[in-house]
Amino acid sequence: MAQPAYIDISTSKWEQVSSSLIPAEWRLDDKYIPRGMRLSPSDSVHKFNEFGDEYETSLFDIPRKCGILTAREVRITEGYDVQSLLKEIAEKGLSAEEVTLAFCKRTAIAQQLTRCITEPLFSSALAQARQLDDHLARTGQTVGLFHGLPVSVKDNFNIKGVDSSLGVAALSFRPATQNAALVDLLHSLGAVIIAKTNIPQTLGLLDSVNHVFGRTLNPSNPQLTPGGSSGGEGVLVAMRGSMIGFGTDLGGSIRIPAMCNNIYGMKPSVGRISYEGQTGFGLGGSLHVALKPTAGPIARSVQDIDFVMRELVPRGEVFANDCIPGFWPSTSVQSMKKLRVGILRHDGLVTPLPPITNILNEVGRILANSKIVDIEVVDIPTPPIMKDCFVNAGRLMSVDGSIPMLDLIFSTDEPLVPSLKGMSRRKPYTIEELCSMNAQREKIEIEMRKSLWSLPPSSASGQIGHVDAIILPVAAHPVPRHDQYGCVSYTSAFNLLDYPAGVIPVRKMTEADLRLEMNPGEKVLSRWDANNKKLWQGDRSVYLNSPLSVQVVTPKLHDYELCQAMSIIDSTLKDHYGQKEGNRAML
Amino acid sequence: MAQPAYIDISTSKWEQVSSSLIPAEWRLDDKYIPRGMRLSPSDSVHKFNEFGDEYETSLFDIPRKCGILTAREVRITEGYDVQSLLKEIAEKGLSAEEVTLAFCKRTAIAQQLTRCITEPLFSSALAQARQLDDHLARTGQTVGLFHGLPVSVKDNFNIKGVDSSLGVAALSFRPATQNAALVDLLHSLGAVIIAKTNIPQTLGLLDSVNHVFGRTLNPSNPQLTPGGSSGGEGVLVAMRGSMIGFGTDLGGSIRIPAMCNNIYGMKPSVGRISYEGQTGFGLGGSLHVALKPTAGPIARSVQDIDFVMRELVPRGEVFANDCIPGFWPSTSVQSMKKLRVGILRHDGLVTPLPPITNILNEVGRILANSKIVDIEVVDIPTPPIMKDCFVNAGRLMSVDGSIPMLDLIFSTDEPLVPSLKGMSRRKPYTIEELCSMNAQREKIEIEMRKSLWSLPPSSASGQIGHVDAIILPVAAHPVPRHDQYGCVSYTSAFNLLDYPAGVIPVRKMTEADLRLEMNPGEKVLSRWDANNKKLWQGDRSVYLNSPLSVQVVTPKLHDYELCQAMSIIDSTLKDHYGQKEGNRAML
Repeated sequence: MAQPAYIDISTSKWEQVSSSLIPAEWRLDDKYIPRGMRLSPSDSVHKFNEFGDEYETSLFDIPRKCGILTAREVRITEGYDVQSLLKEIAEKGLSAEEVTLAFCKRTAIAQQLTRCITEPLFSSALAQARQLDDHLARTGQTVGLFHGLPVSVKDNFNIKGVDSSLGVAALSFRPATQNAALVDLLHSLGAVIIAKTNIPQTLGLLDSVNHVFGRTLNPSNPQLTPGGSSGGEGVLVAMRGSMIGFGTDLGGSIRIPAMCNNIYGMKPSVGRISYEGQTGFGLGGSLHVALKPTAGPIARSVQDIDFVMRELVPRGEVFANDCIPGFWPSTSVQSMKKLRVGILRHDGLVTPLPPITNILNEVGRILANSKIVDIEVVDIPTPPIMKDCFVNAGRLMSVDGSIPMLDLIFSTDEPLVPSLKGMSRRKPYTIEELCSMNAQREKIEIEMRKSLWSLPPSSASGQIGHVDAIILPVAAHPVPRHDQYGCVSYTSAFNLLDYPAGVIPVRKMTEADLRLEMNPGEKVLSRWDANNKKLWQGDRSVYLNSPLSVQVVTPKLHDYELCQAMSIIDSTLKDHYGQKEGNRAML
Repeated sequence: MAQPAYIDISTSKWEQVSSSLIPAEWRLDDKYIPRGMRLSPSDSVHKFNEFGDEYETSLFDIPRKCGILTAREVRITEGYDVQSLLKEIAEKGLSAEEVTLAFCKRTAIAQQLTRCITEPLFSSALAQARQLDDHLARTGQTVGLFHGLPVSVKDNFNIKGVDSSLGVAALSFRPATQNAALVDLLHSLGAVIIAKTNIPQTLGLLDSVNHVFGRTLNPSNPQLTPGGSSGGEGVLVAMRGSMIGFGTDLGGSIRIPAMCNNIYGMKPSVGRISYEGQTGFGLGGSLHVALKPTAGPIARSVQDIDFVMRELVPRGEVFANDCIPGFWPSTSVQSMKKLRVGILRHDGLVTPLPPITNILNEVGRILANSKIVDIEVVDIPTPPIMKDCFVNAGRLMSVDGSIPMLDLIFSTDEPLVPSLKGMSRRKPYTIEELCSMNAQREKIEIEMRKSLWSLPPSSASGQIGHVDAIILPVAAHPVPRHDQYGCVSYTSAFNLLDYPAGVIPVRKMTEADLRLEMNPGEKVLSRWDANNKKLWQGDRSVYLNSPLSVQVVTPKLHDYELCQAMSIIDSTLKDHYGQKEGNRAML
């Protein structure tokens, strides 16, 4: 029997990216390869229960000890944050080329351990790095503020001459004809894009799994999901294959991988970082009518996020039509001397599992006792309308019934991945339905604004918000097993509301957390709540050492204030848990 | 035969506003009333050719000489701009009550001469003014930065307890249950709303004519249109019945009345001044899916516009969900020392008539020779895609086929006004059509941005624009007769593109302008162009002394920069033509 066409295409694509684009000398010794990584991409989609508990040591140690990286390359990839690396390159302590080479090698290693990338761009990255070095040598000037910074972008960002296949056979071998606006902006500043990263089929899952590039593994525990849809990005940044990555977020797709990989992520408001020039599945023009996705950074520190936002936000409108004028004060993000933080414990739809409520309370207590900044912590009651955010956001995510997307995927004989089984074309909305959803959205926006932020309408103080920022869960559950991610209500609410939202890792799950039980007789609030409760039933040992994070939000377009608040909260948490403690994010 | 129901309702509504809400002692002597004003509202809709050339003296003189205003009230209403009036009230040189009374009286006079208002709010305005005076006397503090400022708003802004009838019988006697966000913001700052102003039936015409409140007349020439849809606002501000007015603009509805009434208007970008809490005709939620209208000021000077924007823009997000964080530097708008102005002579769709091209060239020469600021003037070639703006904008103005609107109007037996004859319900768009229009819109936005403003994509200067501002016509024709306003392509383009756009009056039409002829054999570019050419055929004498204006635009959300550019351009024009010359706007 002949192979189905999608297998032929997927196999060719996989060979292209794994053989011809990754040099043979960067191949890991077989002994380092996890069992799950010996499956073909296609098999890895299905056989996610066979990864087992096989990692003797953390995957994070392998790049350091596998012999592919020199000691100097280990230091380059582990010894810097964004600013200090850029300073070192600008001062010629390191060449852009050696930095790029070190990160390309580390990305190749990460890929062999986790399947986190789609397109390795090593040749072009190295060529660009050599040009940067030449320019600096010739002129004494850097090309821009990101001169030589190794970055990665999610697969949907178009790069001229490179596929944006989105893990779909039908989109493979169709290289983009022009760059996304953010890619142009990054290049103009001297950043070096070394890889594009893996995503789920349809871009609509919270895992990163497709038939072309396979299933991305979570390097801290292969039994758990790395998150999605920017899951490859989360893994690559966590493994230090890239200094900072750019994902996209329509319902949590930046924040969820940040949570799953114990790192930081920020979903900006619409208009701050360009989304222009992406490959997507929707009907042309539908982005202007549906809920708007945003692009944003996934990083290893708030400082890295703040640094790139400071340079990107004011330049957005020069490169893209979808950005608005923005400024980002260059003063330290920690200039704030007093912070009023609200704690929102529940969204009214899904009750957070015990370790999630516990970590939020713990963070609240730590913040209230901050030795760094004067932080006041107040409770925010759940606005009754908040439970409607999730359904409204979900409906507005796709207005075209997913017809163009499914037509495209099915144009070869490619099947849907397991967690999409049953997905089918719907009727596109009528204008009346679309208007009605938007009327509901406006009602939600206004009521949420009043409940969360507003001053009495008679106030003329020119201030918005009786709290500076709100912290709440990223999800109602811990990092789950593959294909078990639950309701995205805690993240998608802020896509609907267009609030900037960031994720801060707090600490890892302990044995004591595992022993926490739900309140006996706790009410089941919804079918999402019922499913969520199942994740805490039975054996919970898989969650041991998994990361616990919190989400921080500020009002619409207060992205700078979000970064300020995240910085203060993060510093306070570091001060409490200890900067070097293993429970904190790898830094 | 029984009267049709709409006549009963309209008549009652007219009696309410003209008799019970305007005190008898503010009635003009019959000798001042123009013939056109003796028609009933309903008759005035149709009989717009009967106004004749009857005004012996300018209507603008009547408030001063009719005996209703005291000499002090004449000085109050004519002697100040916004800032100096506010200073006088704050320093107790004038009470808020006497200021309000003076403007209410002047509004009542303007109404009897032009039918410019819908809802007189004199009692509530006077009561509010007394409270402001009490507050100042008691506390020594003003209520806010607009303490005692008499303002007016277009009929569609909701004010609790007051109708937003939009000139439609079916919406009469249905008072609003809450304030529009802008109304709350204005009140919080101490502004006193003294009237709501007239608009066209459906809000979709460039005259201001409906069966309930009749046809608004242009006080400088009753044969010409006062413009629409914020036409009542334009007339009331021109007649000094209000210090500043707030209109709304979806295709030119602030800018066109500004042009027709020889005053200034600014259509901000979406997100600067709240539109929230309006009465409109569309399907609930349709504002989020269709082209977005914006609210903005109509005023007697750029300085007045700058002053109110400076206070309103940063506070928008505190009061409304549809505003974004904005700042407005408090430095003088004329701090700019150098300006690069582009001149865009043609939109590719409708060739401007000879006096329009002439005034644009004249302004270009004057700017290039400015003695005030170093201004460089460059030609901007018409972007080929610009001609597509008009049709795309028009299609996106209403997505619901106008069905809810026409159902509402026809729910009594109310007919459409003459220039809407033939309008009927259309099929609402499908999602596919809506997406396709938005895809086209995005293409237009990107190409227009590149053609008008962009630097090469490799630039990292952080600047947008190789010119600071662009000047172009407001319309391809002069202020036309009633019901003859042509294509709005020169204005609606900037609703589609969301550029802030302002109107500056230049000078009045001279005999020499009237003698200018079209180029022989000039090509007819479109049916709109053919109709436009007709406006310059035959007897042109009606245009003598009509105002000639220019439009100024800057990139999306560069509203502050627009005000800066308008201020410099306006100062240069004033310097050239002479501040006191009759040809300039009445100040």
